[in-house]
Amino acid sequence: MNEGEQLLELGEFGLIKRIAVQVKNASGVILGIGDDCAAIEPTPGLLTLTTADMLVEGVHFDLAFSDPLTLGRKALAVNLSDLAAMGANPRHFLLALAIPPSLSLEFIDRFIAGVLERANQFKICLIGGDTCASSAGLVIAITAMGEQAPAKIVQRAGAMVGDLIFVTGTLGDAALGLELLRGGERVGEAIDRHLDPIPRVVEGVALAEAKLPTAMIDVSDGLLADLGHILDRSKVGARLQLAAIPLSAAFLSSTPALGGDPNALALAGGEDYELLFTAPPDRKGDVVALLTKIGTPVSIIGEITADPGLAVIAADGSDYQVTAHGYNHFARR
Amino acid sequence: MNEGEQLLELGEFGLIKRIAVQVKNASGVILGIGDDCAAIEPTPGLLTLTTADMLVEGVHFDLAFSDPLTLGRKALAVNLSDLAAMGANPRHFLLALAIPPSLSLEFIDRFIAGVLERANQFKICLIGGDTCASSAGLVIAITAMGEQAPAKIVQRAGAMVGDLIFVTGTLGDAALGLELLRGGERVGEAIDRHLDPIPRVVEGVALAEAKLPTAMIDVSDGLLADLGHILDRSKVGARLQLAAIPLSAAFLSSTPALGGDPNALALAGGEDYELLFTAPPDRKGDVVALLTKIGTPVSIIGEITADPGLAVIAADGSDYQVTAHGYNHFARR
Repeated sequence: MNEGEQLLELGEFGLIKRIAVQVKNASGVILGIGDDCAAIEPTPGLLTLTTADMLVEGVHFDLAFSDPLTLGRKALAVNLSDLAAMGANPRHFLLALAIPPSLSLEFIDRFIAGVLERANQFKICLIGGDTCASSAGLVIAITAMGEQAPAKIVQRAGAMVGDLIFVTGTLGDAALGLELLRGGERVGEAIDRHLDPIPRVVEGVALAEAKLPTAMIDVSDGLLADLGHILDRSKVGARLQLAAIPLSAAFLSSTPALGGDPNALALAGGEDYELLFTAPPDRKGDVVALLTKIGTPVSIIGEITADPGLAVIAADGSDYQVTAHGYNHFARR
Repeated sequence: MNEGEQLLELGEFGLIKRIAVQVKNASGVILGIGDDCAAIEPTPGLLTLTTADMLVEGVHFDLAFSDPLTLGRKALAVNLSDLAAMGANPRHFLLALAIPPSLSLEFIDRFIAGVLERANQFKICLIGGDTCASSAGLVIAITAMGEQAPAKIVQRAGAMVGDLIFVTGTLGDAALGLELLRGGERVGEAIDRHLDPIPRVVEGVALAEAKLPTAMIDVSDGLLADLGHILDRSKVGARLQLAAIPLSAAFLSSTPALGGDPNALALAGGEDYELLFTAPPDRKGDVVALLTKIGTPVSIIGEITADPGLAVIAADGSDYQVTAHGYNHFARR
C-alpha cells in the first residue's frame, strides 16, 4: 500500500480504537476514550487547571526536522510545561489531530507512541479527543488538565518588589537548535532542546507544594516576553543581569560561529520550557536547596523593581539595548 | 489597512486581550483567560465531562458558505452537542485557533461574537485556549467541559434488548443543506440546519436528570453510524422502521428534485446534531411528556434486538438495502 493508504483502510473509528487499546485508564477516569465525552472524577478540595496548545505544521514544526516519535513527545511536553508553571499535578488530556492524506499509519503510530511515552513519564492519562482529515498540514491540539490545592497554585500575578527572579536550567538552547537545524545540522544538544523539550513538571509541582514562588511562568515565548507577562500581571518592573543568564556549554561554543549577538537568542529565543519564577530574598536558600535536591540547576538572574518596565544590565553595568523581545504569532518578522 | 493587516498590528497578545475583555468569568472560575492555565473549582460530588472537536477549513467548513458569526456559533454548538449526549450541564470551554494571514480582524471579531453568543445561550464560560498563525486554512479546536452526577450521566453503552429507539427533531436536513449549498443555493431551512445547528442541551440534560435514557448519542456522523456506536458499545442489535424516521417539510419538498434515494440522506447524512437514545417501552410516556413539555418533537424509530446488526425495515415490511453508513474521516469517497 502507498503512504496514507493504510490509514484509509483503517478509517477514523479504527484509528481511535487503535489508540484506545494502548491506554490504561488512570484512577479518577470513570469513562475514557470511546463515548461522546470522557468522564473524570475530580479530587475533592482541589482545583482543576486546564491549558490548550495547538501545534501547526509549517508554523510550530517542520517534518523535515522532526521525527514523529519526538514530535509526539514535544506536543504533550509543551502542555505539561503550562501545568508545571502553575504548580499543577498532571492528570488527564485530550488529543485532537487533523491528519493530511500524505501521512502514513506508521507515522501516526510513532507519533502516538511519543505522546504516550511522555504521558506515562509524567502520569497524565489520555481520555479522549478527535481525529479528522486535514486539507493541508498536520495540526495537533492538546488540552491538558491537572490538579492542585487552591492555596498552592502559582499565578503570573504575585511578584512583589524586592523578589528575586529565578530560572531553571539554561536559556537560548532551543532557539540556537532551531538556527542550527535551519543551517543544515541535524544532531546535537541544542537541537535536542528544540525538538524534544523535557517539561519541568517535577520542579514546578515541588516549588508550588513548598509555596516558594510568588509568581511563575514557563519560558515558551522567550525570557523577555515571558518575564514581561509576569510584570504585566503583577504590576511591577524588573532589572535583569545579563551576565547572570544561564547559558549551556553547547550554547557558548556554538553561538560565536553564528555571528550576531548571542544574547538576543538567550533573551528572546522561545521554547526553552524552563521555569521562570520570583520568590522573596529570604526564601533564596529554600529555592536552591529544593531544586538542588531534585538535581535541577537554578540561577538568580535579577530582581523585581517598583519602577515599571524591564531593564537589562550588561556585565559592565551599562544598560543593554534590547532589540527582539520574543515570539508573537501574527507579528511582522 | 489590507485584510489581515489589523491582526498583524494587534498581535497575538492583543488578540487574546481583545477576546478576554468580552468574557465575564462564571461562578467556579477561579482564574480565567490570561495565565498559563485556567483554574476552575469543580462542583463537589459531580463528575467532569469533557469533549474535544476540531473544525478544519476545507474539511468541515467552506468559507464560501459560512459567514464568521454562524461559523463561531457552530464551532461551539458541535461541542455542546457532545455534552448534551451525555446529559452534562455545560460549564467551561477552551478555544484554540490557527489563523491564516488572509483573515481579517473583522472576521475574527465576528467569529468570536458567534462563539460567545452560543456560550451565553447555554451558560458555558470561555476560560482559555490558544491563538497562533496557520500556514494553510483556519483551524478551530474547542474543548468543552460539563458536569453531572455519576448516577445521571448517559453513556453509549446501556441499551437493553426491547428498548425503544428515540430521536429528537428531524433527520437528513443538514446533509440536504450541504447538497443545496454545493448546488449554489444560499438560504433556506435545510441550509440553516447545516450551517447553524442548535445543540439539544436542554433536552439532553432533562432526559438525563429524569434518568430516562439507557443509552444516548448525538447524531453527528449520521443515524446509522451513530446508532451503530450505541449497538457496538451496548453489544445489542436494532431494527429501524424506515417510515418512522422523522423528515421535515423542507426535506420532503426538496429531495425529489435532487434525484437518488432521499432515505440515504436521512440514514447516513451527518451533522443533524439531534439526540438519539434508547429507553424501556414502559418509559415511553415519560419520554414523550418530558420532550413535549420542552417543545421538542420526538419520534420512535425502532427497537433494540438481541440479534446483532442493524436491520432497516421498509414501509412494505421488506428489508431496506443500506448503501452508505455515515461519515468517516479518512474513508474513500
